Amino acid sequence: MGSVIDSSTSLLARHTHDIVRFAMGAPSDDLMPVELLDRFAANPVPGKYTYGSTEGEPDFVDQILKLQAEHGHASAPDRVTVTTGGMQGLDLACKLFVDPGDLVIVEGPTYTNGNATALSYGAQLLEAPLDENGLVVEVLPELVARGGRTPKAIYTIPNFQNPSGVTLSLARREQLLELAAQWGAMIIDDDPYGLLRFENSPIPSLNEIDPGNPRIFSVRTLSKILAPGLRVGWVDADPSLHPLLINAKQAMDTCTSVPAQRTVTDFLAGGHLQPHLDRVLSLYCERKNAMRVALDRHFGDAVRATDPDGGFFLWVAFADAQVDTAALFEPALAEGVAYIPGPAFSTNGNFHDALRLCFATSTPERIDEGVARLKAAVDKSGAQR
Amino acid sequence: MGSVIDSSTSLLARHTHDIVRFAMGAPSDDLMPVELLDRFAANPVPGKYTYGSTEGEPDFVDQILKLQAEHGHASAPDRVTVTTGGMQGLDLACKLFVDPGDLVIVEGPTYTNGNATALSYGAQLLEAPLDENGLVVEVLPELVARGGRTPKAIYTIPNFQNPSGVTLSLARREQLLELAAQWGAMIIDDDPYGLLRFENSPIPSLNEIDPGNPRIFSVRTLSKILAPGLRVGWVDADPSLHPLLINAKQAMDTCTSVPAQRTVTDFLAGGHLQPHLDRVLSLYCERKNAMRVALDRHFGDAVRATDPDGGFFLWVAFADAQVDTAALFEPALAEGVAYIPGPAFSTNGNFHDALRLCFATSTPERIDEGVARLKAAVDKSGAQR
Repeated sequence: MGSVIDSSTSLLARHTHDIVRFAMGAPSDDLMPVELLDRFAANPVPGKYTYGSTEGEPDFVDQILKLQAEHGHASAPDRVTVTTGGMQGLDLACKLFVDPGDLVIVEGPTYTNGNATALSYGAQLLEAPLDENGLVVEVLPELVARGGRTPKAIYTIPNFQNPSGVTLSLARREQLLELAAQWGAMIIDDDPYGLLRFENSPIPSLNEIDPGNPRIFSVRTLSKILAPGLRVGWVDADPSLHPLLINAKQAMDTCTSVPAQRTVTDFLAGGHLQPHLDRVLSLYCERKNAMRVALDRHFGDAVRATDPDGGFFLWVAFADAQVDTAALFEPALAEGVAYIPGPAFSTNGNFHDALRLCFATSTPERIDEGVARLKAAVDKSGAQR
Repeated sequence: MGSVIDSSTSLLARHTHDIVRFAMGAPSDDLMPVELLDRFAANPVPGKYTYGSTEGEPDFVDQILKLQAEHGHASAPDRVTVTTGGMQGLDLACKLFVDPGDLVIVEGPTYTNGNATALSYGAQLLEAPLDENGLVVEVLPELVARGGRTPKAIYTIPNFQNPSGVTLSLARREQLLELAAQWGAMIIDDDPYGLLRFENSPIPSLNEIDPGNPRIFSVRTLSKILAPGLRVGWVDADPSLHPLLINAKQAMDTCTSVPAQRTVTDFLAGGHLQPHLDRVLSLYCERKNAMRVALDRHFGDAVRATDPDGGFFLWVAFADAQVDTAALFEPALAEGVAYIPGPAFSTNGNFHDALRLCFATSTPERIDEGVARLKAAVDKSGAQR
């Protein structure tokens, strides 16, 4: 579905008037600690500009281990490989586990580039449904039986899923671990948003539920909790995979940008992450609520929207499937609001009646204005099916 | 040959005494403009920490085009894709052009990770010989005929080749372009060292010889001319490949570190590259000469060494193949000198009697000391075959 995104991006570039931007999934400049990052970027450190270890700078790995331990996952240096953003973690997962023709279960809808990476390694994708409690794990055995072969990997975004915003329940996490063991499948546990919870209590991660389970391949990143432009993330996986990951990454980009790792290390070591999260999470919570209120006010029963406990995204489906969100995209831009149409998140082009809204980067007032514009676009356009 | 390098690195880490380091192929800290880079790293720029365009920051692309134009290659924005170092350029080339079982001609010896990347995409490597004028292009037709099928790609490092230091002659460049056209093969033109010429006149690049030839896929990087830790490079290729490169890179790491691109942009825009090159090239020239003198003094006719016009490396072969350089590695470390054994640069494990020396990172005095230690290791060890 690259074409949906590509044409969206190019249309967006041509509209230079005032647009409420619900499309991007990234913290905006005013929600990133740019002064601190600029200050740390200038810190002189010996060896800062030469090649680093492929597995990552040792000081940064220490900070990752500390961060994981604070959030219930006591890990170890030989489980961690630093990556060039979470995207490279997914690329590494597919490079290691996906051979042409292999079956990979993905969530429908899911992260566009997650699908793209798996496809680039020749995966056959099996799109499994989501509900308010995340991936509907209980239907997987039947889906798999119908296809007649077991999956090589299951790709899940357990917390505040992209694009739906839903979170996988504890019972389903446990069931997913059981199925993976039964099938001999890897779980690609992609959790960029886990630390962005602003409501209700955390649900134990797969690693907390089953520490040391070699089938859990965890992809992590600082893109959503700190700053995506740095391109710094990591993989936490069974130590037996460490040499394979290092070899694979060496032939991808040798090592992750050393100055970027140093900047992040100094930020984390200085204890700046939690105060930063405290500040942005109260804003994200307020914005999510503002978006739900605005959807209710402007659309009423004409849409159903998810109610995420964290992250960036809210998924909106038009009742009775009467709106084609791909067709609505250009009229909506003309009204001054941008979003991502549902089919961008499906390898089968599903979800024509749905769209993703990012609530995280606009103020409550702008959110109300953007949703009002969306309603005006629906009313004016012939985007009905 | 990952194992040769891996065990070398781990042995090197265990030897903490004074070592003359001829092994690494990277500028040392004192040969990088670290103060300037740290200063530019702190420059505030809007959008510096958010996602950049997958194809690269427009200001950085402008600087790349300017740099290429100054060196004889007038390019265009739709030919350039910014990469996370030159390594990602090779990964992209293989992702686009190499399918399992495809034949790829590589130089023997060649860059270890170039081979590794091609192999990771399932390439069959055909190792072709080098001499003082680079890849022996005139033997390729016979090699290919003997194998019974044409290559999908030809991987060459035309200037100051890694590891041999030799440069492809103009006549052979022309012949290579003809053969690629005849076979319908891509030329992966990997030139990290081209701007590091300190002797004799530049030889026109493949792009200069045949501007716009769609079979030339040029991989470039700032790693060797400026600083490898930044992980900033680029690909210059036919515009028809641009969308494919953007899609492929998007599923690899989304975009290259934006702060790293900004740092490099400010460095280039400030006109700092040429003064920096002028400074380091006079040192590299002096060091190359010192290494040749030292080899002659300590080994005389017992070795043959290349005489590079630029770059970092000099290739040393023991006359009569009487030394096994893999076996010599540990005794040499014990004497206090590190290098890379020849077999690391061959997919067939060839070149047991040769080794790579980096002359760029040691002073002339240290170079003499290191070569003396190498001779002592040969004399003492039982590294004879």
